[in-house]
Amino acid sequence: MAERVHGDELDVIGIGNALVDVLSQATDDALVKLGLTKGAMHLIDEAQAASLYDAMGQGIEISGGSAANTIVGVASLGGRAQYIGKVRDDQLGQVFRHDLRSTGVRYDVPLAPGGPPTGRCLIMVTPDAQRTLNTFLGASVHLGPEDVDPTLIARGRILYLEGYLFDPPRAQQAFREAARQAHAAGRKVALTLSDPFCVDRHRAAFLDLVEHHVDIVLANEAEIRSLYQVTDFDAALQRVRGHCEIAALTRSEHGSVIVAGPEVHVIPAHPVATLVDTTGAGDLYAAGVLFGLSRGRDLATCGKLGSIAAAEVISHVGARPMVSLATLAADLLT
Amino acid sequence: MAERVHGDELDVIGIGNALVDVLSQATDDALVKLGLTKGAMHLIDEAQAASLYDAMGQGIEISGGSAANTIVGVASLGGRAQYIGKVRDDQLGQVFRHDLRSTGVRYDVPLAPGGPPTGRCLIMVTPDAQRTLNTFLGASVHLGPEDVDPTLIARGRILYLEGYLFDPPRAQQAFREAARQAHAAGRKVALTLSDPFCVDRHRAAFLDLVEHHVDIVLANEAEIRSLYQVTDFDAALQRVRGHCEIAALTRSEHGSVIVAGPEVHVIPAHPVATLVDTTGAGDLYAAGVLFGLSRGRDLATCGKLGSIAAAEVISHVGARPMVSLATLAADLLT
Repeated sequence: MAERVHGDELDVIGIGNALVDVLSQATDDALVKLGLTKGAMHLIDEAQAASLYDAMGQGIEISGGSAANTIVGVASLGGRAQYIGKVRDDQLGQVFRHDLRSTGVRYDVPLAPGGPPTGRCLIMVTPDAQRTLNTFLGASVHLGPEDVDPTLIARGRILYLEGYLFDPPRAQQAFREAARQAHAAGRKVALTLSDPFCVDRHRAAFLDLVEHHVDIVLANEAEIRSLYQVTDFDAALQRVRGHCEIAALTRSEHGSVIVAGPEVHVIPAHPVATLVDTTGAGDLYAAGVLFGLSRGRDLATCGKLGSIAAAEVISHVGARPMVSLATLAADLLT
Repeated sequence: MAERVHGDELDVIGIGNALVDVLSQATDDALVKLGLTKGAMHLIDEAQAASLYDAMGQGIEISGGSAANTIVGVASLGGRAQYIGKVRDDQLGQVFRHDLRSTGVRYDVPLAPGGPPTGRCLIMVTPDAQRTLNTFLGASVHLGPEDVDPTLIARGRILYLEGYLFDPPRAQQAFREAARQAHAAGRKVALTLSDPFCVDRHRAAFLDLVEHHVDIVLANEAEIRSLYQVTDFDAALQRVRGHCEIAALTRSEHGSVIVAGPEVHVIPAHPVATLVDTTGAGDLYAAGVLFGLSRGRDLATCGKLGSIAAAEVISHVGARPMVSLATLAADLLT
């Protein structure tokens, strides 16, 4: 393995909306009746969350949050990783903190003593294993620049930010401040576009970020097409390769493409015995890519690490790996 | 299907300790280090729960509670079922209530506005799929006779009680009161012995119950041997058949035996593609047997319903069925 971290250096620091997932099975008909767009992330308020929860079947609670899932994946691959995100001092907040720390992730953002409860994402998984997200941000809206410590940011080889952070206004400030601090310390900044509708809500800001403020972009096909408002994947690919240092673009079962200037790698999806729940596929792909980049691996290896991590997480319910990714990817990591 | 329920009649009313399960993978070594007896249920207080939780890996939260799991199984088989158990008005309590009601179970015990938090069961699942339980009773200790309504009890064809109720003193009062009411209304009373160590703690009381106050006994091999303090399963079988109307005794992968006076049925276990987590195996076996008995089915069919329900629940994480048991058991139910 090239380039281990030294001293108090970290591989990846992730900032995101801290959420507990509530996963439930649902039919396509149920989504239609509830007016939900399959596969998308819908922002909902506390009252909508209560009424949607009433309409849902029995659930399974598993810690989630897009960047948090990624950071857990980095730790599971053997990386040194830290997470920044806000939960409240309530039962779900304690669950979130416990689960993060139990995987070896460093997490020391104080639990909010008051205000809205810990955020949650009500997830409906349809028989095709597609997930439809309904996010009540809760305490996440209180994440702000004061939660970002420049000395911490300077220690991370890569700062990883989720596009979802653009929804709560103070988190957006924290995002911009952290990116500035990372670059000031000579570190790389990575961004996931998160969701095509999220891109839609913040397109101008995201275009500016991708062109001027971000080194590494992660996106799926729908998100990158939404960013450039093109229907053709290749057209989006040609646009993004001119804009940022590295772009890693996922295409579900068709694998992924990683571009870095003139260099292009087409990476196959890793085989999955049984596809159960696609929640977290993109998050874990990002974990593999970011861990590989942090350790100075070639881009093709980074993509393969992403494919292995994504394959693990879609083979079971929930967006956190259930086995050691370092063991699964041992052939690539030795 | 023989003997549907009529009017406001219910198939089964279950009373138990209301718990949310926190399931985590663990090694055999970890159990040894923590001083836990594999496969058993350990009662722990709030401080012990906090310290054990710290030592556990990342978890999955799923509503549980032995009798609650059984009652959900009865509902999933198409039965009309009601649950009595106490949670607090906190996030986990709301999860518990939501999950029960979403399966069609009737549940109207008021959430406790204060006192200890909703009870939870910290479950460690070892690689052999065996589960080791660590129960913090929490709000369950406040279940009392005032939560048992005689007009409700009179409506249930079978009243189902868990042996675990003998641990919190007020729940034991509720247990005895409900059993008295059920018999006064001409209904059947069923008891599960719950756990061999629970039997150990309450042997004299359980012997008295089985001999004088209970019509249907459910137990696994270890529990029924513990009750009569014999090492031989057949010896225990011969004892219990003289004591109560019906005894349904489970033997893990060796299936079950149902005895009713001179009648004896030996039922095979239902095949399982992949054994994942045995949590809830006995609870769901009980669901099949009780639903069958409520509907006047022959004992062999009751046992088969139990085997099918148990096989479903051990094929995935968590103690609640993930698919319709009525569909799985359609051949037996038509």
